Amino acid sequence: MGASDGIKTLDILAEQFGRLSGIGRRTAMRLAFSVIDMSDEDAARFASAILDAKKNIHCCPVCQNLTDLDVCPVCSDPTRDRSTICVVQDTKSLMAIEKVREYHGLYHVLHGLISPMQGITPENIKLRELITRVSEDGGISEIIIATNPTAEGEATAMYISRLLKPSGIKVTRIANGIPVGGELEYADEYTLQRAFEGRREF
Amino acid sequence: MGASDGIKTLDILAEQFGRLSGIGRRTAMRLAFSVIDMSDEDAARFASAILDAKKNIHCCPVCQNLTDLDVCPVCSDPTRDRSTICVVQDTKSLMAIEKVREYHGLYHVLHGLISPMQGITPENIKLRELITRVSEDGGISEIIIATNPTAEGEATAMYISRLLKPSGIKVTRIANGIPVGGELEYADEYTLQRAFEGRREF
Repeated sequence: MGASDGIKTLDILAEQFGRLSGIGRRTAMRLAFSVIDMSDEDAARFASAILDAKKNIHCCPVCQNLTDLDVCPVCSDPTRDRSTICVVQDTKSLMAIEKVREYHGLYHVLHGLISPMQGITPENIKLRELITRVSEDGGISEIIIATNPTAEGEATAMYISRLLKPSGIKVTRIANGIPVGGELEYADEYTLQRAFEGRREF
Repeated sequence: MGASDGIKTLDILAEQFGRLSGIGRRTAMRLAFSVIDMSDEDAARFASAILDAKKNIHCCPVCQNLTDLDVCPVCSDPTRDRSTICVVQDTKSLMAIEKVREYHGLYHVLHGLISPMQGITPENIKLRELITRVSEDGGISEIIIATNPTAEGEATAMYISRLLKPSGIKVTRIANGIPVGGELEYADEYTLQRAFEGRREF
């Protein structure tokens, strides 16, 4: 659809929706129409929600997780195991892990992965913050690197593990393998190879 | 995903996105994250676009098309054929027809279809406006009803044609048939039946 035959403010709104991740032109126009169908109060509430979220959400000074509190709920939870840090690439990964309710340690959110192809260097992600944190906090015994098992995720994991080696702290990587409920038939060769490498005794 | 582990302003924003047409909970959260990744300026621009569109867009007093001008561009275009009115259910339909650039008459946008099941009566759509317009404007010779060929679209078309019958104006309905490039094999029986009924000589 795209151009709306002269409804300029509608085009501008659709263009704004089109800047959001994964929203194409047709969907952007549909969402713009959705806003026009809203009541004035609902549209005002929507606009405020955008400004409020941007204003209030910042990185937790301890773990870099997104939060609208001074310190994020994980870092300020006294029941969490403070000797373990799980390193993730973004807040979405952190949320996915939290949903499982099996991990009780702390996190460190990198906000990206090292990617020379995209010009993202170690300085562009929250890596220095991790190193400073680990060196200042003497009580950390394990760092679990849980970046996605993609090329960038693996390279970043490798980079971090080398960087932390001198500290003597145990650095681990989450396992690759066949997803639970998945079928070997449909697994790619790398996953299958990792599944064999990671085999465990009963 | 849904709840974001305590980032309240993010949850509120995701909830707002979730109110838009066709946006589920996971997508809503992804869009909310998208806003957090924006610069402050871009987020402010997005919020303003919502408020501006709501403030400026209203129905054209002549044809009820959405517009941010006093009278919509179609109605104020002196080159359009003012003796023909094409009745559509919404602005999206109007835009689809305008894109083809084959229709040069005017429009009337109903903003809905009669649907007793959903409690939408003739009074809830812009039908009275059409009747008033037709009776006040003596120069109209044809009204083309281009509501979608759904149950509600057909019922609304039928209702309007009866309502306009006493005026003596020619009322037509756009054709049903096999879409160009489509295959008979995959056409449903109603479409196929209509395609035969609407057959024309070479």
